[in-house]
Amino acid sequence: MPSVERFVYSFGPGRADGSAAMRDILGGKGAGLAEMANLGLPVPPGFTLSAKLCLAYIETGDLSHALREEVARHLKQLERAAGKKFGDRRNPLLVSVRSGAAVSMPGMMETILNLGLNDDTVQGLLEGSKNPRFAYDSYRRFVQMYGDVVFELGKEPFAEALDDVKRRRRVERDIDLPPEDLEALVREFKGIIQARRGIPFPEEPQRQLWGAIEAVFRSWNTRRAVDYRKVNGIPDTLGTAVNVVAMVYGNMGDDSGTGVAFTRDCRGGENVLNGDFLVNAQGEDVVSGARTPQPIAKMNRGRLAKVFKELTRIATRLEQHFRDVQDIEFTFERGKLYMLQTRRAQRTGPAAVRIAVELVEQGLITQDEAIQRVPPQDLDQLFHPMVDPKANVTVLAKGLPASPGAATGEAVFDADEAEALAKKGRKVILVRPETSPEDFHGIVAAQAVLTARGGMTSHAAVVARGMGKTCVVGAQGIDVDPPGARFRANGRVVKRGQTITVDGTSGRVILGAAKLVQPRMGAHYAKLMSWTDQRRRLRVRTNADTPADARRAREFGAEGIGLCRTEHMFFEGDRITAMREMIVAPDEAGRRAALAKLLPMQRDDFEGIFEAMAGYPVTIRLLDPPLHEFLPHTREEIAGLAKAMRLPPARLKRLVESLVEANPMLGHRGCRLGITYPEITEMQARAIFEAACRIVSRGKKVNVEVMVPLVATVEELRRQAQIIRRVAQEVFHAEGRAVPCLVGTMIELPRAALTADAIAREAEFFSFGTNDLTQTTFGLSRDDAGRFLPFYVEAGILPNDPFQVLDQEGVGKLMELALRLGRGVRPELKVGICGEHGGEPSSVKFCHRVGMNYVSCSPFRVPIARLAAAQAALEEAGVINRTRATV
Amino acid sequence: MPSVERFVYSFGPGRADGSAAMRDILGGKGAGLAEMANLGLPVPPGFTLSAKLCLAYIETGDLSHALREEVARHLKQLERAAGKKFGDRRNPLLVSVRSGAAVSMPGMMETILNLGLNDDTVQGLLEGSKNPRFAYDSYRRFVQMYGDVVFELGKEPFAEALDDVKRRRRVERDIDLPPEDLEALVREFKGIIQARRGIPFPEEPQRQLWGAIEAVFRSWNTRRAVDYRKVNGIPDTLGTAVNVVAMVYGNMGDDSGTGVAFTRDCRGGENVLNGDFLVNAQGEDVVSGARTPQPIAKMNRGRLAKVFKELTRIATRLEQHFRDVQDIEFTFERGKLYMLQTRRAQRTGPAAVRIAVELVEQGLITQDEAIQRVPPQDLDQLFHPMVDPKANVTVLAKGLPASPGAATGEAVFDADEAEALAKKGRKVILVRPETSPEDFHGIVAAQAVLTARGGMTSHAAVVARGMGKTCVVGAQGIDVDPPGARFRANGRVVKRGQTITVDGTSGRVILGAAKLVQPRMGAHYAKLMSWTDQRRRLRVRTNADTPADARRAREFGAEGIGLCRTEHMFFEGDRITAMREMIVAPDEAGRRAALAKLLPMQRDDFEGIFEAMAGYPVTIRLLDPPLHEFLPHTREEIAGLAKAMRLPPARLKRLVESLVEANPMLGHRGCRLGITYPEITEMQARAIFEAACRIVSRGKKVNVEVMVPLVATVEELRRQAQIIRRVAQEVFHAEGRAVPCLVGTMIELPRAALTADAIAREAEFFSFGTNDLTQTTFGLSRDDAGRFLPFYVEAGILPNDPFQVLDQEGVGKLMELALRLGRGVRPELKVGICGEHGGEPSSVKFCHRVGMNYVSCSPFRVPIARLAAAQAALEEAGVINRTRATV
Repeated sequence: MPSVERFVYSFGPGRADGSAAMRDILGGKGAGLAEMANLGLPVPPGFTLSAKLCLAYIETGDLSHALREEVARHLKQLERAAGKKFGDRRNPLLVSVRSGAAVSMPGMMETILNLGLNDDTVQGLLEGSKNPRFAYDSYRRFVQMYGDVVFELGKEPFAEALDDVKRRRRVERDIDLPPEDLEALVREFKGIIQARRGIPFPEEPQRQLWGAIEAVFRSWNTRRAVDYRKVNGIPDTLGTAVNVVAMVYGNMGDDSGTGVAFTRDCRGGENVLNGDFLVNAQGEDVVSGARTPQPIAKMNRGRLAKVFKELTRIATRLEQHFRDVQDIEFTFERGKLYMLQTRRAQRTGPAAVRIAVELVEQGLITQDEAIQRVPPQDLDQLFHPMVDPKANVTVLAKGLPASPGAATGEAVFDADEAEALAKKGRKVILVRPETSPEDFHGIVAAQAVLTARGGMTSHAAVVARGMGKTCVVGAQGIDVDPPGARFRANGRVVKRGQTITVDGTSGRVILGAAKLVQPRMGAHYAKLMSWTDQRRRLRVRTNADTPADARRAREFGAEGIGLCRTEHMFFEGDRITAMREMIVAPDEAGRRAALAKLLPMQRDDFEGIFEAMAGYPVTIRLLDPPLHEFLPHTREEIAGLAKAMRLPPARLKRLVESLVEANPMLGHRGCRLGITYPEITEMQARAIFEAACRIVSRGKKVNVEVMVPLVATVEELRRQAQIIRRVAQEVFHAEGRAVPCLVGTMIELPRAALTADAIAREAEFFSFGTNDLTQTTFGLSRDDAGRFLPFYVEAGILPNDPFQVLDQEGVGKLMELALRLGRGVRPELKVGICGEHGGEPSSVKFCHRVGMNYVSCSPFRVPIARLAAAQAALEEAGVINRTRATV
Repeated sequence: MPSVERFVYSFGPGRADGSAAMRDILGGKGAGLAEMANLGLPVPPGFTLSAKLCLAYIETGDLSHALREEVARHLKQLERAAGKKFGDRRNPLLVSVRSGAAVSMPGMMETILNLGLNDDTVQGLLEGSKNPRFAYDSYRRFVQMYGDVVFELGKEPFAEALDDVKRRRRVERDIDLPPEDLEALVREFKGIIQARRGIPFPEEPQRQLWGAIEAVFRSWNTRRAVDYRKVNGIPDTLGTAVNVVAMVYGNMGDDSGTGVAFTRDCRGGENVLNGDFLVNAQGEDVVSGARTPQPIAKMNRGRLAKVFKELTRIATRLEQHFRDVQDIEFTFERGKLYMLQTRRAQRTGPAAVRIAVELVEQGLITQDEAIQRVPPQDLDQLFHPMVDPKANVTVLAKGLPASPGAATGEAVFDADEAEALAKKGRKVILVRPETSPEDFHGIVAAQAVLTARGGMTSHAAVVARGMGKTCVVGAQGIDVDPPGARFRANGRVVKRGQTITVDGTSGRVILGAAKLVQPRMGAHYAKLMSWTDQRRRLRVRTNADTPADARRAREFGAEGIGLCRTEHMFFEGDRITAMREMIVAPDEAGRRAALAKLLPMQRDDFEGIFEAMAGYPVTIRLLDPPLHEFLPHTREEIAGLAKAMRLPPARLKRLVESLVEANPMLGHRGCRLGITYPEITEMQARAIFEAACRIVSRGKKVNVEVMVPLVATVEELRRQAQIIRRVAQEVFHAEGRAVPCLVGTMIELPRAALTADAIAREAEFFSFGTNDLTQTTFGLSRDDAGRFLPFYVEAGILPNDPFQVLDQEGVGKLMELALRLGRGVRPELKVGICGEHGGEPSSVKFCHRVGMNYVSCSPFRVPIARLAAAQAALEEAGVINRTRATV
């Protein structure tokens, strides 16, 4: 180890000062180049300035004399390796100066090519290449980039001058300009710099080099780079390294070129080298779009076949070395291939699964590594159709991607109409300002749901996600007019019956029928999931309210139901009438009469769900929402119900109004209903146990968990549990059989968490209701947060929407406390989570770490939770995903 | 100590087995009798059965043989002491059998007098007294009580039979009946018992005794006794003792009698023996109301003067012995005085203060004991007029006593009208279904406020309490019809202009002008409070929003303002218009223009408040409520504002609607406003610091604390604090002077408490906003809790309304956590409370125990908090209120 800190690292064919492990110092690009050099792969020689210098430079605006000497030494070494001399008229060394942070920030920072050219050295280039167009094209590119990046003049003035010349010469492409024009352009570019900055273009290569290095360091703090880091959670303190590399030329003729390649197909995962290349071009031409590149496969003929063969060999070598799919940049100069960059390739969810499994099959990685290679969230892409990424679409608006997938259909603005049209076999999209439980049947009938208001946990979002139905909510700029049956967006009006496409993965609302593509779950997925199931400790259950949901969740691997909401059962068909009769009944006798009508319906529901879950535990939550949610609100609805119930409409109206609450979320709901109307709890308990007995009477298994919601004090739970256990005994006695049953509670209020020791004396299980717990812990209503929560996240006041990603610091602290207190009293206490967070990977990992027994999430998120749970177990065991730790 | 547990304790003149310290075993009555016997005071001999037997008896329904033997021994001893024999025909011993629990439960349990009489022994009584009316009156009373209590036939059948005879004989009073009729009544009573219960009246005295003892034990669990204990928080496990005492006869003629007395006047506290007595009567006659008793002072003449003198001597002796005012029962039989009971006397607030202070002056108790003698809550009675307890009133309804005192005025149903009439000098009562901030000026103008809905912390209750204005809320059964300007209650209609009286101390709504009496704060109060101030560690501040409130609070001894709500300042006069302009402004420029109008008004407000507080700390909370609370809601109001603001009414209406929230309590309010509209925070900070500088420029002191509300994350506080500190520097720079200032936050969300360590790095003080903290910890909206919270308290699910009495188990736990975390980071952190609980004694004591620096409460509650704080300090120091610990 040198005694003083080192800031410059050289590399060249077959040897390098650094390696892939030095990513923090060398940046991703520098580390990749060093590693490839060490592997003996063809990289141009060069050196990397440490990223550690970046912040110091930004702060002081200066680089030390010692550094300048260190760079000078490495430049000498580079000259020797390249066999050229920097600033030499006869055999000039040109270099590229490129940024490269430890974390990839594509397109965010700066690159300068062909540095070292001036009126003098261009002669050497000309003479060496015998190619005036190449020489002046290189010179023109350099001055153009330098003016843009170092003089910070932007691209426009240079592009305009170039366009002028092309117009005059009536040519389309830069390379079709004659050398004289290119030479004239160089002069014109220099003139622009002199005119705008008042100083001449630096002819001296050393000054060029330092100007470029400083510009690259400065580019770390451009507005767009800072914003990108904020959005992507990249620390500002990383800094960027600077790579100075001897130029190799893709623009030396038709046996030269440049390209980017992926060692496998990162869309579907197929094991085939793919990518794009351009002949007679330099790097930025591939990405600039000025010329259309060709697929890599086309290299495999004619005189480029040898290059292709070499590229294929190197790609395989890189994959085997890095043990993952690589995204590479290359240039070939007169038929000789050079590698300019290698990095881990981004990939889609389906590709990630296939690649991880095939890498295991090839013996490159272990099953544990494969599990850690797939971001759990990306599994979502495996189960939903998506808008063809290549399709050309007209975007009307963008909202929150509340439930992934994509669907096309006629816009309808009313739940009844949605249902009616769907029954006729029409595909409809339900468009509403926002939805309420009364829209439930419309959501069921629709292909997708679109709302103008609401957040990721609004009614529409939660219900649609639960069904795995595409949904976009809070679509800013959409003005929905239900009476007029139309909406306005982006200057257009969409009327009832017009076709739209809703993209719940990206949040886009698209005019017309966009082309959809359907990913497939296949053998790779099945294999990966079987590995995860062997690794995870956490059980994964589902939130399901119907037998259909329950069956679907079983297909996704759910091992029980963690939350069966009973209130949804009361909205269907004529059940709502009986429910309303119950609510408006003047006394207990009236309520009991109405409840008697609901009992057989509930019993049938539960029977179907128990049947579908085949002995897995089923947690049934007793009635939770405020009663007024079940009541009619419009004049017509009230009149209709009043008639049906033979009540004066005015009286019914008063009754409905009297049930309205200032803050329904904190009102008369949850177990408060069962406490004030114990007959509701009795009916539900009876329905549960009668259904369970029926299952057992058919020789099948059942595993019942009855959950009391919104408990704030142990006394509430005690009284509700008494009713439940008494009714259970009554039913078991009448039926002559018993079923296993636990009685427990949601922990969804801070007070329940704080007094969890007392509550655990009564509760046989806890289920964290993190939606409500987040609301009360933050004092933040999901329904109202839309007015400021997005701003909070954007401004960095909150790292995430706490309704999507569990707030471990606050809400999580309360959960840990509750777990500790609860298990202190009842060590065998079964604990799970049934909020939206149960399907969010980082939250699932938290649940694992704090020692929960299970998570529960919507059916489509079950695979995500399974994978996240396995990753959590591996992280706990210290199994590191080695590839990620290196490149 | 006896080796077996003892259950029976004798007492008689000059000696007793027990003492006052054995209250738990002997009950209050038995302990008092034993203590008086030990003091050599004239008590009839008797014995007490331990309260420990009570629950065992209730459970098993049986008493042990050993106990029967123990009682038989004590009965023998009693016979010897009385010189009479139980069941003896010639010289019969009669006894009273009376209940007596450790805690007084007046009228809740049973008493039987003259036990031991039958057709045989009555002859002995007759012969011994030579008074047939006395003998048969005693016999009649005994059988009547026995039938009521032991046979559980109630009072009615016997009272009816007695009334029949009196009607036939045309006499008014029982004692005017001739002995023959009394004898006949005894037979009739026995017939009633035989007919209704199918068994004869027990003639045998031993059977009578055991029947009576068991009945007294059983009476512990009558419905009314159980309910009384629940309401008064008396444990069900105490049980009642049974006192068997030799009868002395107040009904032996005109030199006999019975009475109750207080050693001082317990209404005003004057040191004078007072009470009532009846000649020729037994105990129950005094309380039954059948005869009108005479004032004790009237005993002091004629042949009862000797008895009076003796009673006075004993009263003084008892006070000196028990070191507190006593409530005593006595009987005199043929001129000889017997003491039957002594206990601590109940007293009004003013009496409690005067008595405590005078006992100190007499050297009977210490100052510390005096402090502990006055229930803090009772101080309330010193500051408010009250309905004359002797007045005959027509009660229209009963509601929650939201703010104490009483007031009379014309009913008005509209805030504007209330203000208009008040300006004309009329006294009005504002009657509303419920109030909102728009009614504020009406509340200011009214003598009292009455609402049909809302709980103890509803808008009306909080605002009225803050002003010390009488208020009754949630008056069940009142149907308010504001458009019709009337309300209906208890079958009557009260129209606009009719006079009513609102009693905020009892919750009564009274028809017409009830007579009011005004207690006085005097020298005794001042002395007691000066003692408390020497003892307490906790500072007491006030919640005050105006200079007038601040001055009043200073008079009550406030040492600063703990909560100055700035939003109330925005409702007055034309401020609301500027405020509304700010809210509906389309952009920041518009908001700043409107805020510029508000700035001078706010500055003047703050200047007045700083002036009034004369250098004491003033905590100013930044704008807190949801903006829509400031907006107009009726069509007329919207039209008016639209005109004033030159906006289309439809647009304004949409804007108002867009601000409506599903759960405003959890919505866009508190610091969320200052985060999304930093210019509001800037304006408020500027107003605060400019006002403070003006004060300092006049050579006066100011002590500013700026409080950021509804903080959930430290980042919110950090950003708001940055604005506040920046504006402070700007103002100080412009004014050329600086003022001391702290920036801190409300801890009113669970998340703030959970992350208090992080928050304390930014906050220079914490103030617990326990109203909101209770709401969010319980998930319980104050505005909506009325539908079930009263039931919760009544049913024992919650011990108290948590919005009145701090929930130490849940909310308190969170507060302790926050304190610990906060002080861990910043040991000097100043911590207070500014919720409603800051003026509730048990909550104040909690605040002391956990180590807060101050409490803050409404001005009228400041003395209560001062006293409670002193008591807390004494309790902590282990200074016991000795009187309470004994009798």
